[in-house]
Amino acid sequence: MTEKGTVLLSITGFPADDWMAALTAAAPDRRIVSEPDGPEDASIRYAVVWKPEPDVLSRLPNLQAIFSVGAGVDHVFAAGEPPAVPIVRAVSWDLTMRMSEYVVWRVLDHHRSGAAYRQRQANRIWEEELNQPAASDVTVGIMGLGELGTDAAGKLANLGFRVTGWSRSAKTVDNVTCHHGEDGLKTFLSDLDILVVLLPLTKATRHIVDGDLFAKMKERGPLGAPILINAGRGGLQDEAAILTALDAGRLGAASLDVFETEPLPANSPLWSHPKVTVTPHAAAISVPAELVPPMVRQMDAHEAGEPLSDTVDPTRRY
Amino acid sequence: MTEKGTVLLSITGFPADDWMAALTAAAPDRRIVSEPDGPEDASIRYAVVWKPEPDVLSRLPNLQAIFSVGAGVDHVFAAGEPPAVPIVRAVSWDLTMRMSEYVVWRVLDHHRSGAAYRQRQANRIWEEELNQPAASDVTVGIMGLGELGTDAAGKLANLGFRVTGWSRSAKTVDNVTCHHGEDGLKTFLSDLDILVVLLPLTKATRHIVDGDLFAKMKERGPLGAPILINAGRGGLQDEAAILTALDAGRLGAASLDVFETEPLPANSPLWSHPKVTVTPHAAAISVPAELVPPMVRQMDAHEAGEPLSDTVDPTRRY
Repeated sequence: MTEKGTVLLSITGFPADDWMAALTAAAPDRRIVSEPDGPEDASIRYAVVWKPEPDVLSRLPNLQAIFSVGAGVDHVFAAGEPPAVPIVRAVSWDLTMRMSEYVVWRVLDHHRSGAAYRQRQANRIWEEELNQPAASDVTVGIMGLGELGTDAAGKLANLGFRVTGWSRSAKTVDNVTCHHGEDGLKTFLSDLDILVVLLPLTKATRHIVDGDLFAKMKERGPLGAPILINAGRGGLQDEAAILTALDAGRLGAASLDVFETEPLPANSPLWSHPKVTVTPHAAAISVPAELVPPMVRQMDAHEAGEPLSDTVDPTRRY
Repeated sequence: MTEKGTVLLSITGFPADDWMAALTAAAPDRRIVSEPDGPEDASIRYAVVWKPEPDVLSRLPNLQAIFSVGAGVDHVFAAGEPPAVPIVRAVSWDLTMRMSEYVVWRVLDHHRSGAAYRQRQANRIWEEELNQPAASDVTVGIMGLGELGTDAAGKLANLGFRVTGWSRSAKTVDNVTCHHGEDGLKTFLSDLDILVVLLPLTKATRHIVDGDLFAKMKERGPLGAPILINAGRGGLQDEAAILTALDAGRLGAASLDVFETEPLPANSPLWSHPKVTVTPHAAAISVPAELVPPMVRQMDAHEAGEPLSDTVDPTRRY
């Protein structure tokens, strides 16, 4: 058994302190560093990253694996080509539960006319209730049937919604009508009332949520026009097309947690659009104390000769 | 087999047209009337009611059963003592699903800081996410473990919340820590972060949600102070005490669908209180097309000599 490999923590864009503390607590027998020692640090075997600094990873001759602190790994590729080592996604019960909370919350707020009732309350209008379809008359379509999409789909089905799903390759999910591939996409889009986007961001999915996609959706339904919820990545959406679709009535409303540019610029019309709910990339926060222990278990297992799990397909990049 | 009994539809406070249409469609072989023929109409065997006119029911010598168009039956007793015949509650999958939608929607909107994020959006504030406990760190306590409370409890548990329940008599519900009786109430109240009230309104429960009850709740928790959700009946709550508790910080927020006086008077301070969400008794609408067919099936079965189900305990009155 060799000495335990050093771990490099390379996070940009938000404070790394909690991650450093969680790594130190979970791997007391490993050296944890936030920068390599010199231009070629041969001691570093694992990197835990979010939008890692360009060139940092490529100068590590003994790097064995890259661990993403988020479920998506697009940020690993954002600054340039990473070294050809396995990339491990963050997968945890905690992260999945949080994402499903967000999805169910937003689906119900649209389904139950949250914005309209808040407007009525502000004007002290009682009147009788608004038109309220049963969940069983409303179809929620989930784009992306990975860990997150599958869990959210099951919880929505449990609330009585009709749930459909779409993924690049064929999948089977209990209580969910699954479609796949280009042909399946058209059918999927033509029969949904609420679209939930939980896709990974890749070259193939960039700006997939655009005017062409909206044009394939049905025009009316029990909630009025279809509703968009994006909790995947901002790069999946064409925000100009979303605004056009909202104003033309092709989209009834949108809940967006992610944006083409984050933080969402103060002059974005999305902030004040009456049909848009903005949250600041808060759908499913990565909690270091939840995500770090499984990473360290994977490092230990890897050094014991076991294969890594939750790795990214190097071709598809998700 | 005797001739099929006439059905009296006696609804006040909202239009009865949809109920008349649903009864006519579901019981084409029965006479359906909206008023008795003369002072003592012996043909009427069943009454379908919401807040029935005083004295109408007592002048029916052959009345066999009273069917409530809502899950609660307090309205049957509101205008005076009804005849001593069985009273049947409305129980339907549709009604239960709608109530659980409302409960889960309001729990998640509080849990996920909906009001705070809407405020931030209005001010174009991105910043980092608000403090967000996991559902597994939040306890939702359901007061009332009938059809509605039990279903909502299961759905909240499925989302990861810790769920507790309280009922007058002992009950057992999967994944729910159940308390009962006066002694159990104290324990129940001392350990919850969100209180969901789904009790029937009786003499014993009138104004049960008052200052004494708030004083038994813990003062702080992962969401700040405890949150109140009432989707049962307005008569369960002391609105002056709710306002006092909100302003004193003993309650963190409230979602109220029911009120001591409905429609909620325009001058009620609840309308504009920043911590209160008002909906107009819309949590679980009674859909005639869903509720009438099971009523008619019960009438048919009753005339065939079978016992009625979903009847109200005449002593407890729920």
